[in-house]
Amino acid sequence: MKLNPISDNIIVLPKKQESKTKGGILLPESAEKEKPQIGKVVAVGPGKLLASGERSKIQVKKGDQILFSKYSPQEIKLDGEEYFILREDEIIAIIN
Amino acid sequence: MKLNPISDNIIVLPKKQESKTKGGILLPESAEKEKPQIGKVVAVGPGKLLASGERSKIQVKKGDQILFSKYSPQEIKLDGEEYFILREDEIIAIIN
Amino acid sequence: MKLNPISDNIIVLPKKQESKTKGGILLPESAEKEKPQIGKVVAVGPGKLLASGERSKIQVKKGDQILFSKYSPQEIKLDGEEYFILREDEIIAIIN
Amino acid sequence: MKLNPISDNIIVLPKKQESKTKGGILLPESAEKEKPQIGKVVAVGPGKLLASGERSKIQVKKGDQILFSKYSPQEIKLDGEEYFILREDEIIAIIN
Amino acid sequence: MKLNPISDNIIVLPKKQESKTKGGILLPESAEKEKPQIGKVVAVGPGKLLASGERSKIQVKKGDQILFSKYSPQEIKLDGEEYFILREDEIIAIIN
Amino acid sequence: MKLNPISDNIIVLPKKQESKTKGGILLPESAEKEKPQIGKVVAVGPGKLLASGERSKIQVKKGDQILFSKYSPQEIKLDGEEYFILREDEIIAIIN
Amino acid sequence: MKLNPISDNIIVLPKKQESKTKGGILLPESAEKEKPQIGKVVAVGPGKLLASGERSKIQVKKGDQILFSKYSPQEIKLDGEEYFILREDEIIAIIN
Repeated sequence: MKLNPISDNIIVLPKKQESKTKGGILLPESAEKEKPQIGKVVAVGPGKLLASGERSKIQVKKGDQILFSKYSPQEIKLDGEEYFILREDEIIAIIN
Repeated sequence: MKLNPISDNIIVLPKKQESKTKGGILLPESAEKEKPQIGKVVAVGPGKLLASGERSKIQVKKGDQILFSKYSPQEIKLDGEEYFILREDEIIAIIN
Repeated sequence: MKLNPISDNIIVLPKKQESKTKGGILLPESAEKEKPQIGKVVAVGPGKLLASGERSKIQVKKGDQILFSKYSPQEIKLDGEEYFILREDEIIAIIN
Repeated sequence: MKLNPISDNIIVLPKKQESKTKGGILLPESAEKEKPQIGKVVAVGPGKLLASGERSKIQVKKGDQILFSKYSPQEIKLDGEEYFILREDEIIAIIN
Repeated sequence: MKLNPISDNIIVLPKKQESKTKGGILLPESAEKEKPQIGKVVAVGPGKLLASGERSKIQVKKGDQILFSKYSPQEIKLDGEEYFILREDEIIAIIN
Repeated sequence: MKLNPISDNIIVLPKKQESKTKGGILLPESAEKEKPQIGKVVAVGPGKLLASGERSKIQVKKGDQILFSKYSPQEIKLDGEEYFILREDEIIAIIN
Repeated sequence: MKLNPISDNIIVLPKKQESKTKGGILLPESAEKEKPQIGKVVAVGPGKLLASGERSKIQVKKGDQILFSKYSPQEIKLDGEEYFILREDEIIAIIN
């Protein structure tokens, strides 16, 4: 079973929150009780529709570790795993 | 009797909610009391009007199993069956 | 006496609500106390103005049976009959 | 004394409300206590500015009997007569 | 001392309110306690910026007697006289 | 130390409020307790980005005495002096 | 570990608030209890998507000292350091 996003929808596997990552990114304290802001891209759509009728290629790809805005991603469960649904403009950066 | 959607309207037969699908997608617990987010496309319009005056072809087609945003699809009853009315940008992904 | 709509205004004769149509479309129960969502197109305007200065031809025509969004069409009385005023994007589908 | 509207402003002489017109248009009961929705066009502007810098010719002309949206036209008094100020998109149809 | 408006700003000398003008325009009673809606254009800017990067020439000129929307023009005092600051789309018509 | 504004940001040195200027502009009484609306341009950005990707040259330049909208400019202190941050569309006119 | 912003996201290391900088910029008193408005650019995205499908090059670069709007930048912690996430239009000026 597989999801093929349309438009600029992106399916993300959120990183489980740890109280301390090694050498890594930590969300501010107040955020620790909130949802994670880091995850791995599982699938991306063909991109947002431009006024010209073309689509703008999405800037992240499957496998990318990403940082995203903390405001209310939608959630779904797929084969027992919980995923986030994001729009491209909710993504801040790729983590290398 | 048949519905021919205009613009980017899409008619969807919502999947009946089960407490556990086999090998499938489960909505989060809080959503189980809400409306289903999965359905089968019954009919699609010619697409949204672009600034150029052309229409953007809709990314799903009749028969597709789709995942859509849970926020308030309109409902109608047709020949005793209940359908959802969606706009293209309320669809998240095609399920394969 | 006749109405010639401008822009994308559409004049619709709403279908009278019946508790049960034969082989037909039924609005959900909660809607039955609300206004009808089905009607016959009586007149259509030349279409919405595009950024290019042209007008986009309206997707329904006089005589079409249509399904429209239930949110607050304006009403007028003409020669004793009650009509709805709709904009094109309030129409969902043509019923065949 | 004369008003030359700019942009898509339209000056309208509202029809006086009668409880019953002969063979004519009647506003629904609830509206009878509200302002009239019918009037005669007295003057029209050169049209709304398009993104291209051109103006879109207004779809009604001086002398037309029109039906317009009931929501709050501005009012002015000119030589003792009361007029309504409308924008083109507040007009629904020309009455023939 | 002189004001050179930028964009589509317009400087207007508001007409003093009289209870009765001779052969002229009278604001409705409720408005008489509000600000004047008539004034003389003192200075106009080069026009609003279009998407193309050009400016749209303003439709009124210095000396024009104008009618404008009554909603809250900004006020300034210049050499002891009170002026209104308007944007072009707050102007309804030129009075001849 | 110097500020180089980006986009259509403009740095302004606000004029100190006097109760009476000689031959000059006076804000209305109610405004005298509010912030000043007059100032001298200290620095301007390259202009607002147009849809074409070009920038629209800002209509005021360093040294210009300007009149601007009274609604809440941002403030910063630079070398002990207080400055206002304005966007181009908050400027009404150049004072000559 | 490194962040590669997408679109017009910008990662900024905020300047620590001092009660008095030497020869420098001071935020107004009321702001001293608020977040800093000055910081150093750590990473910038490829720029905002234009209607044409191209991206507009960001006006600041890595290493720039910048002044930005005080309204609620998002915060993240990276390797123990706290960073701000800004969009290009939240930046006011480069400080030289």
